[in-house]
Formats: sequence, structure tokens, C-alpha cells
Amino acid sequence: MKFQARNPADMFINQLEQAQEKNQSLVCVGLDPNEKKIAALGIELSDWLEQLVDTTAAHVCAFKPQIAYFAAMQAEQELTDIISYIHQKHPDIPVILDAKRGDIGSTAEQYAREAFERYQADAVTVNPYMGGDTIEPYTQHKDKGVVVLCKTSNAGSGELQNLKLANGDTLFETVAKNAVHNWNQNNNVLLVVGATYPEELDNIRQTVGDMPLLIPGIGAQGGDVKATLEAGLRADGKGLIISSSRGIIYAGDHPDNFALKAQQACIELKNTINQYR
Amino acid sequence: MKFQARNPADMFINQLEQAQEKNQSLVCVGLDPNEKKIAALGIELSDWLEQLVDTTAAHVCAFKPQIAYFAAMQAEQELTDIISYIHQKHPDIPVILDAKRGDIGSTAEQYAREAFERYQADAVTVNPYMGGDTIEPYTQHKDKGVVVLCKTSNAGSGELQNLKLANGDTLFETVAKNAVHNWNQNNNVLLVVGATYPEELDNIRQTVGDMPLLIPGIGAQGGDVKATLEAGLRADGKGLIISSSRGIIYAGDHPDNFALKAQQACIELKNTINQYR
Repeated sequence: MKFQARNPADMFINQLEQAQEKNQSLVCVGLDPNEKKIAALGIELSDWLEQLVDTTAAHVCAFKPQIAYFAAMQAEQELTDIISYIHQKHPDIPVILDAKRGDIGSTAEQYAREAFERYQADAVTVNPYMGGDTIEPYTQHKDKGVVVLCKTSNAGSGELQNLKLANGDTLFETVAKNAVHNWNQNNNVLLVVGATYPEELDNIRQTVGDMPLLIPGIGAQGGDVKATLEAGLRADGKGLIISSSRGIIYAGDHPDNFALKAQQACIELKNTINQYR
Repeated sequence: MKFQARNPADMFINQLEQAQEKNQSLVCVGLDPNEKKIAALGIELSDWLEQLVDTTAAHVCAFKPQIAYFAAMQAEQELTDIISYIHQKHPDIPVILDAKRGDIGSTAEQYAREAFERYQADAVTVNPYMGGDTIEPYTQHKDKGVVVLCKTSNAGSGELQNLKLANGDTLFETVAKNAVHNWNQNNNVLLVVGATYPEELDNIRQTVGDMPLLIPGIGAQGGDVKATLEAGLRADGKGLIISSSRGIIYAGDHPDNFALKAQQACIELKNTINQYR
């Protein structure tokens, strides 16, 4: 146990909000290692990751490694190591493993083992298409966060998510409602809502009350900070995890200053966000 | 290139149908290595996998390793090795990597690399919740199969998939229609439909024409062979990949005969299926 939880039932969410308070930041740095860009810097993956983590840790509320990049380059060991490194050197900052897993119960248990036992992540992103019984194997880990896709940031997300149902709701509204009313028995569910869709974000915030939302799509994907905060911020100035990957980690392209450039981009995003809180 | 494709545009589907013809089988053996059960047999994971593959290869049309089990036990190397082993020893039998991946385009490209380059799978299962633009990074690999979740076999799959839309269709029907009309430009899309829902299978078959369907849920999950074939078989007696994992690979529990028991269970399923074709 790397920190003392006030209430084991919502440990991840507590840790997240404590980090938001301590660092006065809603920023989450996404760790998406692009093999070619890192090779061009001429440094090792582990070194690249540790430098980024060290220069930004005082200005974030979470780190979010994207497992697809690690898997494509056979870097399971580096993923294990960087999560362990964050837990040791920056124990106040929780780690969200971005994996978007989804499968039937017996298989989902294996994915939960992958995220929470093997990689020691504090939270994991999951896909709701298969239904609530496939989310339960994650939420039964009461101390962990389970971040369910609701309205994603990509251009084509409306193809299914914005379909209008017979009862007048859209599909993403149903996911938000089911998340609040059915899937959140252990108070450890969060939702993913893209910054690229502030109208849908507003709608989801009204549906889910205080539930924290993970917001990708700021920066390279075009999401606007002001519109995001107006739509999604809670009255207490929290409730959002605003994630940026490429806009921070690739802000610089020189081995001597990429980490400093990332720190500057991270601080800039933190300050831009805070001026609207 | 491990086989000669007649038409590169539908290479996986050709290979699949050639294997169905050659082995007179619609059976796919799911390779879901349960760490405890294999430890109880007292044999190595690679040995367990190779024995199962060798005893069943003459009676199947595909193998389907479930990556979650491998990931939970840090067995990436064994997964790589068994796929390579199948390609070498049983080159007529395609491999479907069951991974149910889904993410925005730039990340989906990494997952496509994971499945097709790193693991050399012939096909991969993917989740449609994020929309067609997140499926394209897989389908652009024209020689590979992309198996999209439509109506899954789990008890709770209806929670979202059977929602009725304003236009009268259900969500899974929309997935089936979009798969046929929008996502299948390269003729390499298939759908997952659970054997546990023959009525929905019948509906989907009518919607998708000749598109091959991967059918989990036979055996341990309770799906019925006769009802599945009546609902989903094409006029040519093909069009289905009927997958069984636990019912075959754990048919025996003794190191001296588990592979033989698996072979018997596989042949039995093949014959049961063929009597209704």
C-alpha cells in the first residue's frame, strides 16, 4: 500500500483528488511512446519516460501510459518499470493504464489481473459495449478506478455513440446513466469524455453528478480548454482529469531539452486550465 | 508469405474457407491458458499449447489464442511462439488473435502492429464502440481479417447491444449494417455473434449476406449447435467459425491424456456440427 486511504471504497478517486489539490492541477500526462521519435532523440525508452515523469510530476494529477504503444514495440518491461518508478518516486500521483479492455467476465478477470496486478496500475480504461457484467470484474477491485468509455474524442465517435434511441436518449447518455445507476456500486467508476465534444460533456456532467471524468482530446486533437471547463467542471473546481499526450511529451525534439519543453507545456496547460477554474 | 492467396483482397477469408474445406470443419479451438490448470498438469505452457495444437489441427478451421490470459501471466513470448509454431507446422490453419482492441486511429495503428506484425496473427477481434474510423487502421491491412464485435455471448450483452434505436433497429443490427455497408471496403470484415443468441444470429445473417461470422459461446457458455447452424449457416454450408475453448482444451485433466481428450472433444464437436450442415 503506497498511501493511506480514508475510505477503501473510493481509494483511487481520493488519491486523484489529493493529487489535484497538492499540485493544483487537473492535468494528466499521457505517456504514448512513439518508437521513431524516441529513436530520433537517441535515448533509451526508459530514460525518456523517467525524464518526462520527473519534470512533470509536480504539475499533474495523474499519469496515463497508453499500453498500445508499449505492446507494439514489445516494451512490457519498460511499462512495468515506469509504473513502478512513478509509485516509488512520485507516490502521490496515480497511474491510469489506458488499455480500453473489454471482454466476457472470465476473460475480463484476466485483463483486470494484467492492469492491477501485473502492471500495478491505479486505474484502467474499459469499453462498455459488452455490458455491465463485463465491467464488474474491474470494479470489484474496490481500491482501483475503472474509467469507462462514454463519448470518445475521435471524429467518428458519433457513428454509434450519438445514435438516438427509441426512448429519446443517445447511446452515450445511456452509458452515462448506466454507469451512475448500475455499474458504480463500489464508487470507483469514472467516464471518458472527449474535449472535442463540449456539448456532450455538458450533457454527461448533468447526468452523472459528481463522477470524475477523464478528458482526452485537448491539444493535438483540437479540444478547447475553456469550453471543456465550462461544460465539465464541478462546483468544487475538480471532477475533471484533462489528459494531453502529444502536446506535452513531444513539445521538444532535442535530447538536451525535450523534458524541459514537456515541463513547460505541462505548466502552460495547468495554468491555462486554472485560469478558468 | 506462408500461403498463396488467390486474391490479396480477401486473403484471410480465403485461407479460412480453404481450411474449412480441407478439414471439413467449422471448429475453431480457443487457446485460453488457465495458469492454475496448467500448473496442476505439471507441464510447461509452451508444451501444453503445442500438444493441443498438434492433436486438434487436422480437425479445425482456425485457432484463436485469447491474449488476456497470456498478458495476465506475462507470457508474450509463449504467445509469439505458439502462433509461429502454428504457421510453421500447420500452415493451412489461420490464427485469430482474440484481443477485442479499440482506440482512436493513431493508437489503433499501434494495436494493429501488435496483432499483425508483432504476433503475426491472420485476424484480430476488435470493438466497434468508438466508430468506423477506429476500425480502419485494422482493415487497411487487406490480407488480414478484422472480426468486429456485434452481439456477444455474455449474459449481459443486451444491456447496450439490444437497445432499440429511434429508427427501429437495435444497436447490434446497426453494427451489422455499418459493417457491411461502410466498414468492409476491403472485404476483410467478419462479425462476432454469440451462439447463446440464435434469434439475433438469424437476424444478423439476414443483414450481412455472406459475411463470415465468428461464433463463441458453444459448450461451457451454453450455446446450442443445432440452433446456431439453423440460424447462421450459409447455403454453401460455411460462413461460420464455431469457437470452443474450455469445452475442448480442458476436456481432460491428466498430463498423459489431456491432449487426446481435447482431440476427442474437438472431433466430437466437428461431427456434431457436420451432421447439421
